[in-house]
Amino acid sequence: MSSQNKYKVKGRIWIEINDETFIGEGKALLLKKTAELGSLRKAATEMNISYRKAWYSINHMNKAAEKPVIILKHGGKQGGIAEITDFGKEILDKFEKIKKEFSIFLESRSKSLNRNS
Amino acid sequence: MSSQNKYKVKGRIWIEINDETFIGEGKALLLKKTAELGSLRKAATEMNISYRKAWYSINHMNKAAEKPVIILKHGGKQGGIAEITDFGKEILDKFEKIKKEFSIFLESRSKSLNRNS
Repeated sequence: MSSQNKYKVKGRIWIEINDETFIGEGKALLLKKTAELGSLRKAATEMNISYRKAWYSINHMNKAAEKPVIILKHGGKQGGIAEITDFGKEILDKFEKIKKEFSIFLESRSKSLNRNS
Repeated sequence: MSSQNKYKVKGRIWIEINDETFIGEGKALLLKKTAELGSLRKAATEMNISYRKAWYSINHMNKAAEKPVIILKHGGKQGGIAEITDFGKEILDKFEKIKKEFSIFLESRSKSLNRNS
């Protein structure tokens, strides 16, 4: 291997519940945006995904965990309000913490790959 | 979160060279099997993939790294011999080492997720 920084270790992680995918990068971002904007529709628009897809993702998370991460309230001029639950916040925090640790893991392995090459 | 071992952190990793995928789990297994069996055709058969796909994978690795991981020699009754290079062995060892460390990473995060839930 050459001595330049040409090698990069990359990867992705997700959390499973009872052997089913629960949350990964995409769903975590949707959860975060929905909580910030208070609206699933706005989050979907900002992420450039359909409302339908966003709704299914939230529904998937709510069912997989057997308790909701987001509560969707219908009505209102803006077409409903979305509210993250304490459980939703907790899972988002934990996923983001693990993601940060994972970035450090990847960075250190990339460095050692380029150093030992 | 419940106190059972219901949460699992899962993931996958790969190595890129100059921002292009070089080797991941599938290619690493193909590289290993081809080296063990001395034949790309036998490795493809054992992995249940087409010879064409296997050939393209090896070719991709050989080109991405700008030096071969496997040398394919044509001819012979068995339809050619495949030989792993020193560079191929080195990259395989490094990938497997990182994969092992990654497993430990995932295991520890899964444990802490279930412990703190």
